[in-house]
Amino acid sequence: MESRARVLIDCKDAKGLVYQISKVFYDRNLNIDSNREFVDKENGRFFMRTVVSGKFDPDELDAALKEVAPTDAHIRVVTPKEKKIVILATKESHALGDILIRNAAGELGASIECVIANHETLRDLVERFDIPFIHISAEGMEREEHEAKVMAEIDSHTFDYIVLAKYMRILTPAFVSSYAEKIINIHHSFLPAFIGANPYKQAYERGVKIIGATAHFVTDDLDEGPIIAQDVIPVNHRFDWKDMQRAGRDVEKTVLSRALDLVLHDRVFINGNKTIVF
Amino acid sequence: MESRARVLIDCKDAKGLVYQISKVFYDRNLNIDSNREFVDKENGRFFMRTVVSGKFDPDELDAALKEVAPTDAHIRVVTPKEKKIVILATKESHALGDILIRNAAGELGASIECVIANHETLRDLVERFDIPFIHISAEGMEREEHEAKVMAEIDSHTFDYIVLAKYMRILTPAFVSSYAEKIINIHHSFLPAFIGANPYKQAYERGVKIIGATAHFVTDDLDEGPIIAQDVIPVNHRFDWKDMQRAGRDVEKTVLSRALDLVLHDRVFINGNKTIVF
Amino acid sequence: MESRARVLIDCKDAKGLVYQISKVFYDRNLNIDSNREFVDKENGRFFMRTVVSGKFDPDELDAALKEVAPTDAHIRVVTPKEKKIVILATKESHALGDILIRNAAGELGASIECVIANHETLRDLVERFDIPFIHISAEGMEREEHEAKVMAEIDSHTFDYIVLAKYMRILTPAFVSSYAEKIINIHHSFLPAFIGANPYKQAYERGVKIIGATAHFVTDDLDEGPIIAQDVIPVNHRFDWKDMQRAGRDVEKTVLSRALDLVLHDRVFINGNKTIVF
Amino acid sequence: MESRARVLIDCKDAKGLVYQISKVFYDRNLNIDSNREFVDKENGRFFMRTVVSGKFDPDELDAALKEVAPTDAHIRVVTPKEKKIVILATKESHALGDILIRNAAGELGASIECVIANHETLRDLVERFDIPFIHISAEGMEREEHEAKVMAEIDSHTFDYIVLAKYMRILTPAFVSSYAEKIINIHHSFLPAFIGANPYKQAYERGVKIIGATAHFVTDDLDEGPIIAQDVIPVNHRFDWKDMQRAGRDVEKTVLSRALDLVLHDRVFINGNKTIVF
Repeated sequence: MESRARVLIDCKDAKGLVYQISKVFYDRNLNIDSNREFVDKENGRFFMRTVVSGKFDPDELDAALKEVAPTDAHIRVVTPKEKKIVILATKESHALGDILIRNAAGELGASIECVIANHETLRDLVERFDIPFIHISAEGMEREEHEAKVMAEIDSHTFDYIVLAKYMRILTPAFVSSYAEKIINIHHSFLPAFIGANPYKQAYERGVKIIGATAHFVTDDLDEGPIIAQDVIPVNHRFDWKDMQRAGRDVEKTVLSRALDLVLHDRVFINGNKTIVF
Repeated sequence: MESRARVLIDCKDAKGLVYQISKVFYDRNLNIDSNREFVDKENGRFFMRTVVSGKFDPDELDAALKEVAPTDAHIRVVTPKEKKIVILATKESHALGDILIRNAAGELGASIECVIANHETLRDLVERFDIPFIHISAEGMEREEHEAKVMAEIDSHTFDYIVLAKYMRILTPAFVSSYAEKIINIHHSFLPAFIGANPYKQAYERGVKIIGATAHFVTDDLDEGPIIAQDVIPVNHRFDWKDMQRAGRDVEKTVLSRALDLVLHDRVFINGNKTIVF
Repeated sequence: MESRARVLIDCKDAKGLVYQISKVFYDRNLNIDSNREFVDKENGRFFMRTVVSGKFDPDELDAALKEVAPTDAHIRVVTPKEKKIVILATKESHALGDILIRNAAGELGASIECVIANHETLRDLVERFDIPFIHISAEGMEREEHEAKVMAEIDSHTFDYIVLAKYMRILTPAFVSSYAEKIINIHHSFLPAFIGANPYKQAYERGVKIIGATAHFVTDDLDEGPIIAQDVIPVNHRFDWKDMQRAGRDVEKTVLSRALDLVLHDRVFINGNKTIVF
Repeated sequence: MESRARVLIDCKDAKGLVYQISKVFYDRNLNIDSNREFVDKENGRFFMRTVVSGKFDPDELDAALKEVAPTDAHIRVVTPKEKKIVILATKESHALGDILIRNAAGELGASIECVIANHETLRDLVERFDIPFIHISAEGMEREEHEAKVMAEIDSHTFDYIVLAKYMRILTPAFVSSYAEKIINIHHSFLPAFIGANPYKQAYERGVKIIGATAHFVTDDLDEGPIIAQDVIPVNHRFDWKDMQRAGRDVEKTVLSRALDLVLHDRVFINGNKTIVF
């Protein structure tokens, strides 16, 4: 039976890699439906994403690729199946709502396992879509205590990614390192401008003429980590910071959904503090 | 004889200003060809730019407006005449070249008095356009000594604005305060991201997906000051910092020329650390 | 009691209009919170949108403005109250979904009276938001017969605007003229490029590098009429027309929601086949 | 001695092409510095652009690639040398000026053989850059007679591409077919909107909110042909068509220069009426 897989390879650069890898596909009589490579010359890293189709055993293909790739290679043969996500949110509905609508339309290509929020505000919206909503209040708790509860809830699910859809809590390093390369955040500024609290107010006070949003993997703290997607919109002197915030919401939700779409289709490699987006 | 003027008013906000000012125009039987107002409610400031046409004496009009406006009002009745600019540059030709070409085509609406540079590199380009090129080397000099020579040269000209077309020297506070609200700079980043040296390298290292440029008035130091115009372009993982620099040049020159066009047409008010752009 | 109103004036241009109108406000001791004017010199039309606050009787204010404005003047004193909309849709959920989410978040500033669709597809989505969904099938009917049913349903509601959120039916001139200046459509191309059926397929076949969307008032036929808002996104040779369609959805929904926001805040004047957007 | 080449392959798609081609590189111990492929599935065409470095004989490499590629393959092994261009212009200086400035800065990566114009207007500008300016008036001549003179002048030069930098003459099919796939034009609209004369006036009359420019290869007539690059800028109701034209110039020159840069770096394949841009 014909099937299709995304082959993702990330390894030390070496001469002949394209040849060796394409030989593996050729020897198995596979079609290359699309293929993109990138060599990070600065760090000597090779990245390749190939969509192949034909008759193949994913495990055998994986093993064959391991044979020809450098020993450090990170190889994934991903056969198409729905990925699973857990969403963390607070009170704002625009980014979450956009994901829910896309999901309801079958456009997301992922299953939403649950939405966890530190306020009750979004329950009604989430439950309208028959998705479990779990409220874990942070009221009167230390950060660590609250996070432990959130992590317990997260860990009770099977998931590929955690999406912070305007989750307005600072995460501890312990939380972040528990889910390395799995947390995707939308930051409401054109990073690295306006790191920290209330970027729209900062943008207003600086008198910028363009505002933006940044979707990124979360590493040490909320506002760093490899950037996946960014976009901007023009503003002008008539915008107060509330207007900027309102205008920014459309960019935030578009950028987060675009980043999610890229990640869920295995189009994003993490390369140190950067991403390769094919 | 019919003539036309740009009337610019900047004052404390007060009830009835539009009425009082438009009465002045009405009483003189002037046409309002265009009119824009803005009230900065946070600081209680009123800004108005009106283009009027008809028969009038600019001095009389100015006096009449002063009568109705609050005592702190900054009023200008600008009749159309070419403004004069002095350009400072270093070695890069793209921003300067764009201004020279626009000027040669009669599009700039300004006369370029001279180009002053701390290197000889751009002499040939500038002299092709029959514009005086003055080389003031900074070689083996203290910053203050070099600046004194540059200021002496600048002060030997009549000018409305000083344009820093990729002038890669840090200005002293003394220099900046000598030409308050008269210096326009192009910064090669989407401010306030990547303040300081080599923003493209910083942008590359941060792995951003969009780069930009910012034209601004120079106040205390090179990278602060009221922003006039900004724009961006997308980049991706295939861009090294040299590619970003190359790509950024088009944005830099477009943004600087746009800002210059706005300023030379008296469309920009400075409002604290921000601008009002009509 | 203090209140606030949007004053909208659209009339033949005449000398002294700003003065006469601002005098009306001044005489009633009203604050001008914001004010924008535009004169269409080609056609000699004057447009003004002023937000005033203070103590006033809207009817008296309206009468006073009528006294000073030219006899043809179209004057509206709009006091803030929620507008009402009726939405027409077919099968696609993205544009409709975006409106529903904004509405659920209280961002729309309008009440959705009902959604009328010629298919059942969207019932589940709409009813999740407790909004009446009315299915009026066009199956086996002449266009006129179907439209008569739709119009009967529409007319059973009180509404300010009809929003075509990807309503994929061609409207008859009779329908359009019944709701003059009240129908807002989103067209899935950067009009006037790709008028007619399947613009994404047309765009793909032409090999364009940018695709877009256009929100406009509907006049004679679906793809003409005054444009309210447009936006674009880049595409490339890797996009087939289905990819363009997918990518285009984000632009479509953003542009429709932006246009709706402008119209619902009384920021849009129709001026012949164009709009003035303040 | 180490050298570098761009290898461009365009052929019927077939299984194993990437393998066969990369084997040719591998067998010669060449580095793949960058590599991009695209398969047009609709038409069964394969496109590949690879930058290789190492020790090789371009002719031998070309012959080896011909051996493994399908018989219809169009293969080019391009070693870096400056390309040559001939520019045609009329009276407008912005697009031409941008190319001249880039060229003077060594950024163009091409040699400008001459500028041919049907008016004298641009002579001064061109000669400032020591580039031959040839005026061929069309005054009192049939189109064919004028074109014959222009072609005679063009043919007296060695060149890779003819650049129409706002050349406002309609070309005959005979002219176009003489220089197939060699003529690059900048059209002052977001094609296919506003084909034909005075697109800015058309845009103004249609009341669009965005205007654009399109760089494309010229095939049968001026406004068709494979699109290389497009870009847009926002406009609003305050722009008359002259304002749109002025604003459009920046987009025109940026888009033309970007297209030229792509073509001169061998990044553009023509694929029927479309382009593949790597």
